Amino acid sequence: MGAALLSEFATEIVVPVCAVIGIVFSLVQWVLVSRVKLTSERHASGSNKNGYGDSLIEEEEGLNDHNVVTKCAEIQTAISEGATSFLFTEYQYVGIFMIAFAILIFLFLGSVEGFSSKSQPCTYDKEKTCKPALATALFSTISFLLGAITSVLSGFLGMKIATYANARTTLEARKGVGKAFIVAFRSGAVMGFLLAANGLLVLYIAINLFKLYYGDDWEGLFEAITGYGLGGSSMALFGRVGGGIYTKAADVGADLVGKVERNIPEDDPRNPAVIADNVGDNVGDIAGMGSDLFGSYAESSCAALVVASISSFGVNHDFTAMLYPLLISSVGILVCLITTLFATDFFEIKGVNEIEPALKKQLIISTVIMTVGIAIVTWIGVPSSFTIYNFGDQKVVKNWQLFLCVGVGLWAGLIIGFVTEYYTSNAYSPVQDVADSCRTGAATNVIFGLALGYKSVIIPIFAIAISIFVSFSFAAMYGIAVAALGMLSTIATGLAIDAYGPISDNAGGIAEMAGMSHRIRERTDALDAAGNTTAAIGKGFAIGSAALVSLALFGAFVSRAAISTVDVLTPKVFIGLIVGAMLPYWFSAMTMKSVGSAALKMVEEVRRQFNTIPGLMEGHAKPDYATCVKISTDASIKEMIPPGALVMLTPLIVGTFFGVETLAGVLAGALVSGVQIAISASNTGGAWDNAKKYIEAGASEHARTLGPKGSDPHKAAVIGDTVGDPLKDTSGPSLNILIKLMAVESLVFAPFFATHGGLLFKIF
Amino acid sequence: MGAALLSEFATEIVVPVCAVIGIVFSLVQWVLVSRVKLTSERHASGSNKNGYGDSLIEEEEGLNDHNVVTKCAEIQTAISEGATSFLFTEYQYVGIFMIAFAILIFLFLGSVEGFSSKSQPCTYDKEKTCKPALATALFSTISFLLGAITSVLSGFLGMKIATYANARTTLEARKGVGKAFIVAFRSGAVMGFLLAANGLLVLYIAINLFKLYYGDDWEGLFEAITGYGLGGSSMALFGRVGGGIYTKAADVGADLVGKVERNIPEDDPRNPAVIADNVGDNVGDIAGMGSDLFGSYAESSCAALVVASISSFGVNHDFTAMLYPLLISSVGILVCLITTLFATDFFEIKGVNEIEPALKKQLIISTVIMTVGIAIVTWIGVPSSFTIYNFGDQKVVKNWQLFLCVGVGLWAGLIIGFVTEYYTSNAYSPVQDVADSCRTGAATNVIFGLALGYKSVIIPIFAIAISIFVSFSFAAMYGIAVAALGMLSTIATGLAIDAYGPISDNAGGIAEMAGMSHRIRERTDALDAAGNTTAAIGKGFAIGSAALVSLALFGAFVSRAAISTVDVLTPKVFIGLIVGAMLPYWFSAMTMKSVGSAALKMVEEVRRQFNTIPGLMEGHAKPDYATCVKISTDASIKEMIPPGALVMLTPLIVGTFFGVETLAGVLAGALVSGVQIAISASNTGGAWDNAKKYIEAGASEHARTLGPKGSDPHKAAVIGDTVGDPLKDTSGPSLNILIKLMAVESLVFAPFFATHGGLLFKIF
Repeated sequence: MGAALLSEFATEIVVPVCAVIGIVFSLVQWVLVSRVKLTSERHASGSNKNGYGDSLIEEEEGLNDHNVVTKCAEIQTAISEGATSFLFTEYQYVGIFMIAFAILIFLFLGSVEGFSSKSQPCTYDKEKTCKPALATALFSTISFLLGAITSVLSGFLGMKIATYANARTTLEARKGVGKAFIVAFRSGAVMGFLLAANGLLVLYIAINLFKLYYGDDWEGLFEAITGYGLGGSSMALFGRVGGGIYTKAADVGADLVGKVERNIPEDDPRNPAVIADNVGDNVGDIAGMGSDLFGSYAESSCAALVVASISSFGVNHDFTAMLYPLLISSVGILVCLITTLFATDFFEIKGVNEIEPALKKQLIISTVIMTVGIAIVTWIGVPSSFTIYNFGDQKVVKNWQLFLCVGVGLWAGLIIGFVTEYYTSNAYSPVQDVADSCRTGAATNVIFGLALGYKSVIIPIFAIAISIFVSFSFAAMYGIAVAALGMLSTIATGLAIDAYGPISDNAGGIAEMAGMSHRIRERTDALDAAGNTTAAIGKGFAIGSAALVSLALFGAFVSRAAISTVDVLTPKVFIGLIVGAMLPYWFSAMTMKSVGSAALKMVEEVRRQFNTIPGLMEGHAKPDYATCVKISTDASIKEMIPPGALVMLTPLIVGTFFGVETLAGVLAGALVSGVQIAISASNTGGAWDNAKKYIEAGASEHARTLGPKGSDPHKAAVIGDTVGDPLKDTSGPSLNILIKLMAVESLVFAPFFATHGGLLFKIF
Repeated sequence: MGAALLSEFATEIVVPVCAVIGIVFSLVQWVLVSRVKLTSERHASGSNKNGYGDSLIEEEEGLNDHNVVTKCAEIQTAISEGATSFLFTEYQYVGIFMIAFAILIFLFLGSVEGFSSKSQPCTYDKEKTCKPALATALFSTISFLLGAITSVLSGFLGMKIATYANARTTLEARKGVGKAFIVAFRSGAVMGFLLAANGLLVLYIAINLFKLYYGDDWEGLFEAITGYGLGGSSMALFGRVGGGIYTKAADVGADLVGKVERNIPEDDPRNPAVIADNVGDNVGDIAGMGSDLFGSYAESSCAALVVASISSFGVNHDFTAMLYPLLISSVGILVCLITTLFATDFFEIKGVNEIEPALKKQLIISTVIMTVGIAIVTWIGVPSSFTIYNFGDQKVVKNWQLFLCVGVGLWAGLIIGFVTEYYTSNAYSPVQDVADSCRTGAATNVIFGLALGYKSVIIPIFAIAISIFVSFSFAAMYGIAVAALGMLSTIATGLAIDAYGPISDNAGGIAEMAGMSHRIRERTDALDAAGNTTAAIGKGFAIGSAALVSLALFGAFVSRAAISTVDVLTPKVFIGLIVGAMLPYWFSAMTMKSVGSAALKMVEEVRRQFNTIPGLMEGHAKPDYATCVKISTDASIKEMIPPGALVMLTPLIVGTFFGVETLAGVLAGALVSGVQIAISASNTGGAWDNAKKYIEAGASEHARTLGPKGSDPHKAAVIGDTVGDPLKDTSGPSLNILIKLMAVESLVFAPFFATHGGLLFKIF
């Protein structure tokens, strides 16, 4: 079997070094973005390439005057303050919940061996002695909190970067679309690299610190580390749900009164909900999404580690091979770094139609280079042959097989990305068909949009199924976990192009509010349309990887709970399966209703302001932005609790009362059903949004027959877009957290369920 | 163990006698309906109770004159001819497919033993000799065709009855809402009893005829009988999909131009698509639904029979116990007969608000009486203790446990019915909330409607899960099958109240087209609103029973294919599970897109006629109804092929290339995912339809603030209603056929898959 080529010492150096490189690169990008000044002084001249430091090329309409820049800065400050204040409020509430849940973890896991502090025989190798369950309880709790804090940090920093970048993107849009693109993309990269590197570094440090106590008991060590994934995902759930409700309540509310009733443009400063809408983009799409992808990353690493710890890597104490998941992520950072340079330095964007191809190229380049990176890591990082724990058996795996597992995940991600692009970009026929159906009104638009979403599920599911089959056949649950890691290995690039979207969206909002010219708005709209597609792609990645991660966690849970088979043909499992498949519907119903109700409140407030503030419509008086911000904040804080509780409590209730078999059924059901709804919801929403933009932009003969803004087809398209808002930004993306979180929670609590679970069946 | 109390001879008499009673009762109801004359002569005076034979109480506005009656008769003839012509065309196309598929069944099943005509050892008892596989192939093919023909007959007769009744309901509405209700309900009963009795009788005769050849080889006999279920469901699939596309293309097309663009009322005779719309109700909701529920009934009987044949009933040749499923259905007919009298003779409807309670009472009464019926049948029909085949083991079951299995299915059906009513009737807050959300436009209406549909899934799924758990725990797959039978035991009543809806809908249409007064239309609208709810309840039953039936068939398939476990944690099964969960989305995308495209064509044609036929809007010229009928016919014939092929071919392809484990995964995945979409789609659609009716009726203070017809909230409600059309009448109800059909097809082909399946894995 042999050991890996890379020595333990080298591994201990490579991982943190790559993480630090990622952080440094992120800071460099930040410095470059910060060269766009938000004060009206002339910019210092600098490099002439790709738009930092050079002066305005189009000094049109007196827009580079002191006033506009100051106004942009003001609006940015308002957005940033709103977002910060919301996140603080959110974190306070969630913080209380997290502490309560941490105590629960400690009590539940501690009770497994009756809070005994005596060492015990290991679960998988009864001849060895492992650390007491109480220690695992304690360290699980610590890593849970660590995961939660890292997740908070990820979301918060992401938001700060985005709100730092949006006005700068607006100002750069004056110089041309290429310049604006660079700023938005660089800012996305700051967030992407910071999150990826930070997640890796914290995990690495935690493992090394925990090792000081656990020593050779790697089984206990990596079981405790799983708490990191749970913490990350729990936080992400509230971030996504709370942020999602916030942003969509504001967005829907602003659109319904502003665009539909009052016929004023999107992001018009007269609309009282406009600041809340822009804040929403940052707390929902940026902070929520950052937490979400960090959670996926943390969980897939944890799933791989926990399976490896009971396989030959763990048993033989081969540290390099053990840290293979972290090595993949380390190389991923370097690969993404090179990829980013292609967008910011090697090529230049000259026209609007080059934006989407440039972003698409990012995906292709990173995937191609990463394939080589994976080959290298697999060659030097793992022995040429090793064994993997597979539900009681050991399975022999060759290193080339492991390479294929990671590779298939990586490429499946690319396929999912392309399919998502095909179904949500207005360059292709699906979105154009949806736009065309607006001719006959909103009803056909909604029917076609829903059908499009359903259809867009087909190929991604086949891609996921093939990944699962290949990686499962080669390396059992470890294969699935590393396939998920493969899909997430280019997370820095994924996050960069994903964060780019809301930044552009905000930039457009600021341009409108600052009263800049129509041409600037057209540029930011073009950036934003590409951003809708990349947001959908990002969600596609998040969902695809969530499916793989959950399956890996599910497998780890089954191993840990000592179930040998999950047989659909037993009543306990089957009822779990069908109820599990229902949970995503329950969850979606809650979140969509929440958005709807919050939006109704927002509509009433916006109407009230238009009716009672004299001179508001004429632009003489300022609206009361703060009340709208408060409505969104209160609604999302209040409404995020029930869906959050549903997800967090289901595994606990099912495991405690019905036992591990039923819980296994619930996890499998939620997984296979949730993936479909999540993909279709996010693609349907993306398609509607871009169908509307397609009509507004009027770039083709066909599009012009449907427009212009305000025409009947356009009105129908706006209705579709509004329906899509909660689907694509609230319920859809939260669903992938639902399936991951229930799986990782089950894994963490597995020892408790295995000993004390299934009360109901025990009684009867 | 002992034998059943009821002798074999008594059983041989009881079953056909009950079936004949059902048919006779159905004919009596038909005679009563036919007393309403469609000629303008004065009615012969007759019984004065509940409105047959008595003369018009309200001879208002000269409406009982020759003209109106002739006009009604004309319209009825047009609808009936349109429906007949469509069904003939449909049956021609599907007939070719059925013959091809029948040949396929014979070839596939014949090839299992290489077309040998030698007897062979039995599958479950190797010491006995069973009939050759070739015989099973032949008899399976015959029973497949028999099932298909019975299904065609069910749909066709249902349509004939409905088109016979609709104008009569309109004419009776002149006398009052109670009279109209009775005619509509009696006609529904004609259909319900005819279908239930006919299905039972054909099955009974087939079993007795097949027995002449099979003799003591009951394993082979009941395996061959399974083809009956497959035939019934295959036909039902095409009926539902084809009819669903037909009706909704016409409905959406008619509404979009007539109601939205031209502002003319629903069913206005000036609308060229109005006849197609009314034809659609009969071919979709009546013929399609009749075939569907007949299919469910045939399949659950077959599933129970095939499991029983390899259990102690079959092994000991206890004929009475063997025919327990048929005994249940026989008693069901008697129970429903009594129940029907409560609606038609014991009570009288006096006001609009009594309609829904009367229909609801039907459900409760039939369930209560049937519980007693089941107890009696179980007491005399099965031994006090017997054994059931359970995946290789034998499980001992007491007769009271079997009673609980059937009972839990029956009562779960009632609960599903009530929950459906709660979520789709405009008497309760969910629909009122949806109506209220129309205040802020179509977008919030759609969001609230979708959320309502998702939420309405929760309790039905728990009800199904509990039924599964109870019946599975007590009597394994036999328990599930009889639970499904329990849910369907009151099928005659279910069909009666279900068919009542489209009949009332048509009656309203005829009233409008014949130019009858507003008051008549109000009465038929009230009948129709209750009909929307009962239609949703009917769909709830269909879906709930489909879930149980599929599971039972799935279990029988697994037994027959000699798989011992379906372990989610094997790659073969898991990929099946996730792909299976995707199929309902694929299928829905196809059917919804089909409706959308066909509706677009219809819109263009209707617009063309309004623009080119002079005097059409003014009512001087007649529109060209035939072209619209042709568009719907052509579209539905063309568009039903791809979704039909998807469902019919998937099990064949998966079984042949990937083998029985993956196929088992696909079935389980499609089942747990399809049930949810089906329930939510049909409830969302029902809720939107009734939210619209709620605003139109303006029966409460709240409703009046949203109305009247033509107000902005009402327009938003119309959009929701239109979106809901394909959901509730095309994709939703077809999904339960999808899950049943794939399961029964897998069961029929199981011997082939077990011997020749899994090619792909055999090659690699």
